[in-house]
Amino acid sequence: MSRPSNALVLFSGGQDSTTCLAWALTRFARVETIGFDYGQRHSVEMTCRRRIRDKIVGVLPQTKDRLGEDHVLDLSVLGEMSETALTRDREIELGRSGLPSTFVPGRNIVFFTFAAALAYRRQIFDLVGGMCETDYSGYPDCRDETIKSVAETLSLGMDERFHIHTPLMWLSKSESWSLAYELGGEALIELIVEETHTCYLGERGTRHVWGYGCGLCPACDLRAKGYNVYTSTL
Amino acid sequence: MSRPSNALVLFSGGQDSTTCLAWALTRFARVETIGFDYGQRHSVEMTCRRRIRDKIVGVLPQTKDRLGEDHVLDLSVLGEMSETALTRDREIELGRSGLPSTFVPGRNIVFFTFAAALAYRRQIFDLVGGMCETDYSGYPDCRDETIKSVAETLSLGMDERFHIHTPLMWLSKSESWSLAYELGGEALIELIVEETHTCYLGERGTRHVWGYGCGLCPACDLRAKGYNVYTSTL
Repeated sequence: MSRPSNALVLFSGGQDSTTCLAWALTRFARVETIGFDYGQRHSVEMTCRRRIRDKIVGVLPQTKDRLGEDHVLDLSVLGEMSETALTRDREIELGRSGLPSTFVPGRNIVFFTFAAALAYRRQIFDLVGGMCETDYSGYPDCRDETIKSVAETLSLGMDERFHIHTPLMWLSKSESWSLAYELGGEALIELIVEETHTCYLGERGTRHVWGYGCGLCPACDLRAKGYNVYTSTL
Repeated sequence: MSRPSNALVLFSGGQDSTTCLAWALTRFARVETIGFDYGQRHSVEMTCRRRIRDKIVGVLPQTKDRLGEDHVLDLSVLGEMSETALTRDREIELGRSGLPSTFVPGRNIVFFTFAAALAYRRQIFDLVGGMCETDYSGYPDCRDETIKSVAETLSLGMDERFHIHTPLMWLSKSESWSLAYELGGEALIELIVEETHTCYLGERGTRHVWGYGCGLCPACDLRAKGYNVYTSTL
């Protein structure tokens, strides 16, 4: 029996995972989404997820009927862990390395393992995530080598051949905008600008040409710069 | 700076993880424990864990002052996942393969990833678990190949060299009893018989020569047979 052409997208409601969702919808017969609730920017992310899912098929009409269930898992344990279990020495050391003390290492390994466990039960063996090494900012669990190793570990540990797709891995931020344009034209760009949330703060903020956000945090900065480069090449 | 000789033991309060805890206490300068609370046999396991931790240093006097903190993480999400997200076809298929429909694949990958994330924050890079391939009963996440791959993935994903020790990997159940005897003599055997819980049911049941339990489920059967072979070779 050939394997079904289904995929499960790690979907946070941000720019990257929305681009990945569009990418998956153009490639797989059926696409489900999974999100992780662990307290961070909870309410705005959950609202963005729902609105994007409601609208994305409208801007990608060729993918009609492909969007399947959404799953949200409660991973508040990640938040609990980051609040405890930190030794004083380690706190100082993490501070020196520039990592926040709330940093939970290996978070993407946790996300993919839960995604795979759920996917296994639904006979889905293609997972999609928006990790990107180009703008790699100190997080070794975003690297291509790590993600390939995760796929190997999950395949061994569940005795099924899992594939992890990371279509943004080698793209710059402006190339991610270009990919969105290729996939869904101006309508998808407008959906991403209007409905996705990237800002570190849990508020929508004011609308800029590149979307909503504080406009000052590293995530807004990266998004704005990428959008500006993208539009300058149109 | 040489790495500290600390270890974190995945400790459920069962026979295998108690033997692993004894093994780690004889080898590392400081040993912490981690447990996962996900609803299964909750109350009896938590009681066993506490009582074993209270007593084990008494039966291993050479390890005095080595037992460190205990950590318990709430992974009720594992129980939630097993209650939902299962397609009808998949339920039938899992039934055919002999796996219960509550089976969460890759559970040990989840456990080790959380253990490593916590260990990272506490500057511990040696993890210990009671996985065993000899009595391997359909769970690919217990296999040596999987555990080695988990260690590699965690090392890449957290940019630290993690070691995963599985001292029971190639032992039969009777050899696990023998290892406990080597580590702590009759006193450790008696602690394991009296205080550890292996039975699938969440009750202590009656005391047999090999410990408490229903005496009928596969876990009791394996434990009893191993104990009988072990005592016959004394």
